This record gives sequence, structure tokens and C-alpha cells, in this order.
Amino acid sequence: MKGCLRVVGIGPGAEGLLTPLARRALEEATAVVGYRAYLEMVAGLLAGKTAIPFELGQEVERARKALALAGEGERVVLLSSGDPGIYGMASPALEAWLALAPQHRPPLEVVPGVPALTACAALLGAPLGHDFAVVSLSDLLTPWEVIVRRLEAAAVADFVVVIYNPRSRGRPWQLGEARRILLRYRHPDTPVGVVRRAFRPGQAVAISTLGTLDETTVDMETTLVVGSSRTLARDGVMLTPRGYRQEVEA
Amino acid sequence: MKGCLRVVGIGPGAEGLLTPLARRALEEATAVVGYRAYLEMVAGLLAGKTAIPFELGQEVERARKALALAGEGERVVLLSSGDPGIYGMASPALEAWLALAPQHRPPLEVVPGVPALTACAALLGAPLGHDFAVVSLSDLLTPWEVIVRRLEAAAVADFVVVIYNPRSRGRPWQLGEARRILLRYRHPDTPVGVVRRAFRPGQAVAISTLGTLDETTVDMETTLVVGSSRTLARDGVMLTPRGYRQEVEA
Repeated sequence: MKGCLRVVGIGPGAEGLLTPLARRALEEATAVVGYRAYLEMVAGLLAGKTAIPFELGQEVERARKALALAGEGERVVLLSSGDPGIYGMASPALEAWLALAPQHRPPLEVVPGVPALTACAALLGAPLGHDFAVVSLSDLLTPWEVIVRRLEAAAVADFVVVIYNPRSRGRPWQLGEARRILLRYRHPDTPVGVVRRAFRPGQAVAISTLGTLDETTVDMETTLVVGSSRTLARDGVMLTPRGYRQEVEA
Repeated sequence: MKGCLRVVGIGPGAEGLLTPLARRALEEATAVVGYRAYLEMVAGLLAGKTAIPFELGQEVERARKALALAGEGERVVLLSSGDPGIYGMASPALEAWLALAPQHRPPLEVVPGVPALTACAALLGAPLGHDFAVVSLSDLLTPWEVIVRRLEAAAVADFVVVIYNPRSRGRPWQLGEARRILLRYRHPDTPVGVVRRAFRPGQAVAISTLGTLDETTVDMETTLVVGSSRTLARDGVMLTPRGYRQEVEA
């Protein structure tokens, strides 16, 4: 029996945003490995399969377990919410895969998904209408100086900035620092989209500003979109015009 | 009769990556507006609907036409390939929507999709495993100086850089300039993922380097992913490790 590993993005968690390719991969799987909460999101598709839940933080363990099962002949799905390539399981899975001797590597495929950044953007309007940068504020695996340098660069170059992992109980201060950095280059009135649990039960969408953002409303299930100098917020929508010239000429 | 406008991302074009939400929006539509080639991608879902094809470049016209039809009571879908928020139709549609008097605005919804950047990343491995910046090289609506500033900033801060609209017959030189800028900060051996027509007929995936990239193989249907200083290419996959420390400690 020939095993394989598919690293599958299930999107934000809504069935309407689970792609047919991801659904098919789940249907064809014999074993599904994932963070406990993501397994619950696809519980309806797990009947008759071995489901192997893990806790947060155990990304490397999940990748190794999934590879080991594929090596034993299972057709394994390793779950990611959103897209597996964006702060998801594709990177740890491929690191573990490359660490195996070539003859021990099972076939590996990454199935893309709707990432949090586009799900959140859709609920806000069109904040990513022009160039943007994506930064995680988690300094668990990345030195804070690297994150600061990226925020500075994104601010200087007038990128819209999407912020993942903005704030948790264990990391309460990074978001405040990030705001201070961005405020050195961008007006306090710059719109900030605040989206919690996009397309999931408990979804909350708000548009704040860099100057007035209430950090205590932000948690690990929140994604932030900080506008560029061109981004406007009006009548409940956040919009970054696609063209620079179009606006200048208007 | 009450009209509405849905700006719908159909993903890269493969049926397996068309979300159920996008499919449902198309099924419920009475009129579908879009670039001719995108209408062809969903031709199987257009029976009995008014399909209104436009050419490239007519983004503003498409948005206005879609809004006008919604105002006349049609349930309109405005098509985008990939995700409508990323260089897609969400921004021009919302610009046109905000320009209407509030009482003339039809209900508007953005339906997210699998963007080209995650589709291409999945085919390459895990190149977006850490922070990244997304830049379009099209200077039709954006001054070239703005694009240069963004490329510089992304390079300095060691972002992975995703490049949309890299090269066309009318814009043959911008990619060469972008390469020269990135090469000032990044090693010639930096991996560059070159993905053409991801998940479509004629798909081509290659991994080159910043130093050896053959620009003449790149066209408007190609998306490029330029690695950070941490990105590696090995055994046919491109990988940006998720953690900085993990690698340092290894």
C-alpha cells in the first residue's frame, strides 16, 4: 500500500469556503492529522477515518506524525485553517519531508485554500486593492528585531499591512509596539480593519483607526488590516483604490 | 425586484478550487459580468443567464455595468479570477459603489477566493512560510517610483516578495529593473519560483534564481515568488522555514 501526504487548507472554517479539492482530499484520506479545533471544523467528513488531534504549538510534532503515517501506507491529510502556505502547516511539513532520506519521502502535495487575509478583506470591502505586506507579530520563533524591521519597511513604502497573530495572553505588548512604529509614518486617521473569526460563528467585523484602535478587543483569532496612505473608510467599507493615477486625476 | 451585486473570486480557474460559496453565487445570478476569459472558465454555470463579456483594461466599465444591472433589479455576479480583493474587481466595484448616492447603492458583497499567490505557492512547496510582500509591476496606474520604493523596502526587510503582473509585451523592462533592485540586497542564488497558469491547462512550474532567471519566459500569466534570505530550494521544492530560531538552533 502506497501512502501519501496532502497538506490541506480548509479555508476560514465555513463549509462554503472549503474547496472541492480540499473536500476530495479529506474524503480520500484514511488518516487526518490536525489541531483539535480544525478537526472539529471538518468533523462531518471524518467518519471512518483515524483522526489524530494535536494541541497548539505542536506543529513540528504534527508534521512528523503525518509523515510517519504516510510512510506506513496511510493516505494522510494534514489540516491547516486558511491556506497551508501562510503561517500554516506547509512549511513545517516540507521541512520534515526534506529531512528524510529521499527514498523514505512519501509523495507530498499542498492543497491551497482561502487564506484568512482574503476572507477578512472580503468582509471589510477592498482593503487589499493595491500592494500589501503580511507580517506576523508572533516573536516565538522570530526575533522581535526582525519583525520591527519589517513593520518599519512596510510603513515607509506605504504598503497596506496585514497583521497575523496580533495579540495573545502570553504576548500582550507587541501590538502596541507595532502601532507606535506604524504611527511614526502613517496618520492616526489611517483605517484599520479588525476582523475576528471571519466566516465562523462569532464573526465580528469593525473598522477602527491607527490612532483609536482598542488593543484589548484584539486576540489570536483576530486579523488586522492597516491601510496605506491611500486607504479610505467610508459608509462601513474599507477601500484601497487600485490605481494611484486614477485617484490623482479624479 | 431587488437587485444585488456580488464580486466573486473564482480562484485560479480549476473547478476543484471554485468554492461552494462562489458556485452558489453564480447559480443564483441572473447576470454575470466579467473579462471574456474568466466567463469561459465558468461557462458551464452560465446557462440561462445574461453573460456580459468585457476586454482587459475595462475594469471601471465592468464595475459600472455590473452596478447598473444590479440597480435594474438583476442579481449580478462580477467575476474575478483568484481573489477579487487582490488586484481584482473588489476595489473598482467598491469605488464605483461609493460614488453612487447612498439610496442608489445596491447591496454589495465580496466573495473571497483562492488567490494566485497561494495557488502558486502550493505548487512550489512552501515559499510563503514566513512574512511576505505582494507587489504588482504594472505601472499603468501606479508611478514606477512607488513600485521601486516598495521593492527596495521589501528587499531591505527580508520579505519574501510575490510579484504580480511581472511582464507583458507592452511592459518588457520592469522585471529586469525589479531584479536589479532585489539583487542589490539579496544573493544571486536566491530561489525564484516561476509559476505560469497555476491549476489551469498549460500549467508550468519552475524554480530559478535571482541571478539566472530568464525574463523572456515570463509573461502576464506568470506569478513570481522571490525568496527571502532564508528561503531554500532543494529536490524540486521551494521552502521558507516558518521560524527563524528553529533554523538558527538547528
